[in-house]
Amino acid sequence: MADEVVLLDFRPSMFGMRVRIALAEKGIEYEYKEQDLKNKSELLLKMNPVHKKIPVLIHNGKPICGSLIIVQYIDEVWNDRSPFLPSDPYQRAHARFWADFFDHKVYGVGRKLLATEGEELEVTKKDFLEMFKTLERELGEKPYFGGETFGFVDIALITFYSFYVLETFGEFSIEARCPEIISWDKRCMKKESVAKTLPHQKKIYEFSLESIGLE
Amino acid sequence: MADEVVLLDFRPSMFGMRVRIALAEKGIEYEYKEQDLKNKSELLLKMNPVHKKIPVLIHNGKPICGSLIIVQYIDEVWNDRSPFLPSDPYQRAHARFWADFFDHKVYGVGRKLLATEGEELEVTKKDFLEMFKTLERELGEKPYFGGETFGFVDIALITFYSFYVLETFGEFSIEARCPEIISWDKRCMKKESVAKTLPHQKKIYEFSLESIGLE
Repeated sequence: MADEVVLLDFRPSMFGMRVRIALAEKGIEYEYKEQDLKNKSELLLKMNPVHKKIPVLIHNGKPICGSLIIVQYIDEVWNDRSPFLPSDPYQRAHARFWADFFDHKVYGVGRKLLATEGEELEVTKKDFLEMFKTLERELGEKPYFGGETFGFVDIALITFYSFYVLETFGEFSIEARCPEIISWDKRCMKKESVAKTLPHQKKIYEFSLESIGLE
Repeated sequence: MADEVVLLDFRPSMFGMRVRIALAEKGIEYEYKEQDLKNKSELLLKMNPVHKKIPVLIHNGKPICGSLIIVQYIDEVWNDRSPFLPSDPYQRAHARFWADFFDHKVYGVGRKLLATEGEELEVTKKDFLEMFKTLERELGEKPYFGGETFGFVDIALITFYSFYVLETFGEFSIEARCPEIISWDKRCMKKESVAKTLPHQKKIYEFSLESIGLE
């Protein structure tokens, strides 16, 4: 039986982008169904009744929810090409640690950067740059977070808003402080899976302006 | 080489308890090092410099951080006995979804239940019971969340405070609304790995009283 793959998603979602990059990396054909998040479809509510959120991957009729869970699922099912996670348990745990760090630390501080002003913004900027220095140290001189090939941690981080947006809101230069991260960003953007998925930086910026205050 | 396994932990931590149950289930011998969270040890700061939090598993000198990441690591390394995660990718994704639900939904609402009063407490109680009904539906008539055997989702949920504590703070009966969950709880508590790890309910209650307001 041919695989039937459907993606319920919303174009500007950084979580959705992760799944689209993963599908592109594995060369999986799928049907894309854009969702109206203000008027959720019956299909979305049926496929993700607990969170009612995109992205949802529907594989042969069965739903998988949560961007990093979906990316791991894709890696485990289509395991004959472009592995995202390394095979060594320690390296796998390490990759999961960083992906978790993005979702539970970077995401929160990034959103705060977009939504605060004055003194609070200054504190957030400091936190943000500290966090990026941690990432810079973790990346080191490796081309990708996992080593020589684009993988799970890269997919998890590359869709994080965009550096242009963060720099614009934060009024700072990430490049001056974290040159390796910027080189890594450019390296990822050269990949077709990433370049085709990530919208133009200015579009993300406009969307960010609209979405401030919305969760 | 014999495995050298060290656990940096704090007895009342529900996150640490997950790791202790996982180690007990696999029959792994380890050295336990209780941590003073108000005066963090050099070893903890060195082994988890990003979050500076317990639990940390140190396996042959290398640290693994984050309770669910550690439990998966243990499952992948000691994979010849008591598997926690199923081998089927869809079932694995399903298990990860529920574990994630506990950490990002149940944990937040549970803490709120312990820390709010008046009208806000009433709203939180409603949210909490709604959430437990969702869990009751997911468990259904299966003995454990993953089916016939105790696994990843059970380890993730069983250390969540304790039902006694939640019922005492919420002034409601979980049993009346979610009898299957209570049967599951009793079934888990009969397992030596769980019974030996979870402190007596009254102790957790006293600790919860002390810890309100502390993160």
